[in-house]
Amino acid sequence: MIHNYKFNVQYEGTRYQGWQKQESTTNTIQGKLEAILKHLTGQEIQVDGSGRTDAGVHAKGQIANAKLPVYYEPQELMDYFNRYLPDDIAIVWCEEVPERFHSRLHAVRKTYSYRILNTKTPHVFDRRYVYQLESPLDLSRMRKAATDLIGQHDFKAFTSTKKGKKSTVRTIERIDIVNKGDEIVITYVGDGFLYHMVRILTGTLIEVGLGKRDPESMKTIIDSKKRDMAGYLVPAQGLCLECVEYP
Amino acid sequence: MIHNYKFNVQYEGTRYQGWQKQESTTNTIQGKLEAILKHLTGQEIQVDGSGRTDAGVHAKGQIANAKLPVYYEPQELMDYFNRYLPDDIAIVWCEEVPERFHSRLHAVRKTYSYRILNTKTPHVFDRRYVYQLESPLDLSRMRKAATDLIGQHDFKAFTSTKKGKKSTVRTIERIDIVNKGDEIVITYVGDGFLYHMVRILTGTLIEVGLGKRDPESMKTIIDSKKRDMAGYLVPAQGLCLECVEYP
Repeated sequence: MIHNYKFNVQYEGTRYQGWQKQESTTNTIQGKLEAILKHLTGQEIQVDGSGRTDAGVHAKGQIANAKLPVYYEPQELMDYFNRYLPDDIAIVWCEEVPERFHSRLHAVRKTYSYRILNTKTPHVFDRRYVYQLESPLDLSRMRKAATDLIGQHDFKAFTSTKKGKKSTVRTIERIDIVNKGDEIVITYVGDGFLYHMVRILTGTLIEVGLGKRDPESMKTIIDSKKRDMAGYLVPAQGLCLECVEYP
Repeated sequence: MIHNYKFNVQYEGTRYQGWQKQESTTNTIQGKLEAILKHLTGQEIQVDGSGRTDAGVHAKGQIANAKLPVYYEPQELMDYFNRYLPDDIAIVWCEEVPERFHSRLHAVRKTYSYRILNTKTPHVFDRRYVYQLESPLDLSRMRKAATDLIGQHDFKAFTSTKKGKKSTVRTIERIDIVNKGDEIVITYVGDGFLYHMVRILTGTLIEVGLGKRDPESMKTIIDSKKRDMAGYLVPAQGLCLECVEYP
């Protein structure tokens, strides 16, 4: 009898090579979780995440699932994980779900945040979670540009992906750009995001905010489908997977 | 001509042996700041803080001052500090003040916060800034006990100080105990706090919240003037110096 567990895993990405396990290193979130399940069950158990996060990216709302051959109380399983996980990774809730549930295939909506510290003054307490940028950003320009990114588009220009046949069409539902003191938080809500997409969107919006790019230029970039038409890839540390939603 | 600079220094205390410089180590906040001023001026310049914080204690609002033999623009001095400080220490503002200003002698009010994460579930992002305590706390009992700590008292029972002739009388103006989700924040406002005082007050209030002590027992502890009558010393990492005020 298979038992499928869905759980919320939070992590500070600073020390890790991203979510996905790799042959070359055990230093990934998925790798850490699978090693603990192997220790628990004596078997190779796959942990599926809602999506990969890159090296250095954080997650408050990463959702994963794993199918175990034996029954554990969800709380018991969560406690077991937390006992063996390093202190920059934690499971914050866990529940048993139907066997067909798949954290990636069934995800319908994701929310990412990107935090920009827009000042010269260092910020001690949030330093690992923000991208510091000294030059002032014009938020009204950025908001104007963001409007043209909303909706269903082929975001091929906004991904660093290698050649592939997979669709690069995604739907962005909302982009909020909010100012909190010295900090600017850009929140992206959509049905899914391509490799590096949030970071390239952010780099492009920053270039608009700095006056280097026209707020009206988004459509041209989308239509070009060329990576080099879009903006720069901002650092991973400002990015956080906030939330993943299911039907 | 002497120029006196007052500045707000923030730090994550995790890696440091506290504020005060020591013969045995350079790993203190004061030590780091003085080393930078020596580098800048070529002279031994003393940096006075509003008070010492212990090893592992954080500060958002530590105020310090230093007297320099040459004039620098405050912004220039602050930038110089920040260029050479490690990323867990930062100067967030700096101003020139009259030569007589002394950050410790002239401080009239200090605010400390102590953060308790009152759940079994680990908290990844704030893990260095909270003290995790699984057993549930009864806040109404704690608030009741806190009431009897307000006012001017001899807090000798609440300090780990070695024998000395210095006064152990202090005035606590306010203690707020606030619940934010899984977190409990205790805020102390007073004219000054003795060595370990906030951490022993917190340990005592926690014992009241756990039901190990009577909420009415505070007066007895104060009157005893005996350290062993008060509660345990909670860990440094939950403590933060929030703010120091001057007339």
